[in-house]
Amino acid sequence: MGTVTIVGVGLIGGSYGLALRERGMASRVIGCARTQATLDAALQRGAADEVTADVAEACRQADLVILCQPPEAVVGMMPLVDGAVGADAVVTDAASVKVPVVTAAEANLSRPGRFVGGHPMAGSERTGVEHAKADLFEGANYVLTPTSSTSDDALGVVRDLAEGLGARVRVMPPEEHDRAVAAASHAPHAVAAALTRAVLTDSAAVEVHGAGLRDTTRVAASEAAMWRQILLANAVAVLDALEQVQGELDALRNALAARDEARVEEWLRDAAVLRRALDSAAEDDA
Amino acid sequence: MGTVTIVGVGLIGGSYGLALRERGMASRVIGCARTQATLDAALQRGAADEVTADVAEACRQADLVILCQPPEAVVGMMPLVDGAVGADAVVTDAASVKVPVVTAAEANLSRPGRFVGGHPMAGSERTGVEHAKADLFEGANYVLTPTSSTSDDALGVVRDLAEGLGARVRVMPPEEHDRAVAAASHAPHAVAAALTRAVLTDSAAVEVHGAGLRDTTRVAASEAAMWRQILLANAVAVLDALEQVQGELDALRNALAARDEARVEEWLRDAAVLRRALDSAAEDDA
Repeated sequence: MGTVTIVGVGLIGGSYGLALRERGMASRVIGCARTQATLDAALQRGAADEVTADVAEACRQADLVILCQPPEAVVGMMPLVDGAVGADAVVTDAASVKVPVVTAAEANLSRPGRFVGGHPMAGSERTGVEHAKADLFEGANYVLTPTSSTSDDALGVVRDLAEGLGARVRVMPPEEHDRAVAAASHAPHAVAAALTRAVLTDSAAVEVHGAGLRDTTRVAASEAAMWRQILLANAVAVLDALEQVQGELDALRNALAARDEARVEEWLRDAAVLRRALDSAAEDDA
Repeated sequence: MGTVTIVGVGLIGGSYGLALRERGMASRVIGCARTQATLDAALQRGAADEVTADVAEACRQADLVILCQPPEAVVGMMPLVDGAVGADAVVTDAASVKVPVVTAAEANLSRPGRFVGGHPMAGSERTGVEHAKADLFEGANYVLTPTSSTSDDALGVVRDLAEGLGARVRVMPPEEHDRAVAAASHAPHAVAAALTRAVLTDSAAVEVHGAGLRDTTRVAASEAAMWRQILLANAVAVLDALEQVQGELDALRNALAARDEARVEEWLRDAAVLRRALDSAAEDDA
């Protein structure tokens, strides 16, 4: 991969750095962040060979730039990246929403064919390079969203990156990605937060809680500012997915209110069959 | 604990048996189940010293009976247990709904003071003694629901059982238990199943899914017949909790539809603060 510049060395960016260095996939990893504390932490964790707050200088030296920031920051970074990167450099990102990012890349980059939108479906409710892990992407789905302007060569570089990290590459248009992750990630996040708000304000519920509640609400601990950007950047698809979830809850509530044993059990059984199939598929893949 | 009879040696009953035997808490553990296959499996796993399909005979020999079945089966078992147990035996259960169970105990048992309703907040989406674990109750909340008729002696026996298994005992009236677990366990289960039904029917969402979706939906894989009983036995409180969850989702949807950044972020931030406090409390306890 030559010299890889990672802009934003938090949980995700730091995990790229650790993985690239441990696997010997890059000759050099440069980590960028705004604060000296983050830069020091990234260096100490071994997430980069060198660190700098000067993004333009770091991009100038890069064969591959990975933008690991929230969606709005990635969009805002495009002009600066464009002014710095060399003609052959490939640029990718790891943001959770792809239409705004890909649109900004095509509008701002002199060589939009060198940009490939990416989204590793890996992460954690934790933040910061101190929680970064070299195996974060191992076995994870990793979506790439090339467009008709993307060069095959750039797509190949980012595919090699994702596969080299042990992830499973899925290629789809940005619009399809955003609709799919609204259902698979953004709406579940909103549902976990709604459950948290409804339940964890109840001290008796907290007193009796078990692992089920901890699992179903875990992602709600994630950083609010980042998720505000994600949910708003993908609001139409998120609203659509949430409407479907609420439709399912309405169906259950009607069956419960009617004390309809058969309907409640069928509703639960269909869910159990769907959820078990997800585990079986994961075991088949492993 | 003397001789402990466990009626129903599946995931929960089997875990009691394994834990009691590993910790040397009982002089003898008798496991009861309807099918020979389950009895054989319980014996092979080491979840009981002896097994039998004859519940009455096993109760006759017991100092402590633990009913580890779904709520309807526990209720239906009371007359048989009453006809079999000795005058000093203590009876408890592990069902997820307590009002119907405690009501049945007080109506059917000749010595209702010897019954103590119990609910270990531990389990798994898996079923069967093959998934039983000796440490299932370690660190878990364990609710006891004595009433004014419960003898102090019987309560002490079941408290010793729960604490001996490494659980944290919480004592509350059956009505308060049922309201609290509607929020902490039953509504989250319903929400996970609704999310599963809405999302896992979408092949693109399955293709891109990550650990967040697996966590938020995990409990939906649980046995439908048991959860049908639980949700219906606690329907009023579950409906109330689900209405609150949907109210929170409505608030988010309104803020998203209005593209109100401040309101979306505040909504998410309050959830994150609540959810992080749950982890901090768990770490303090550990």
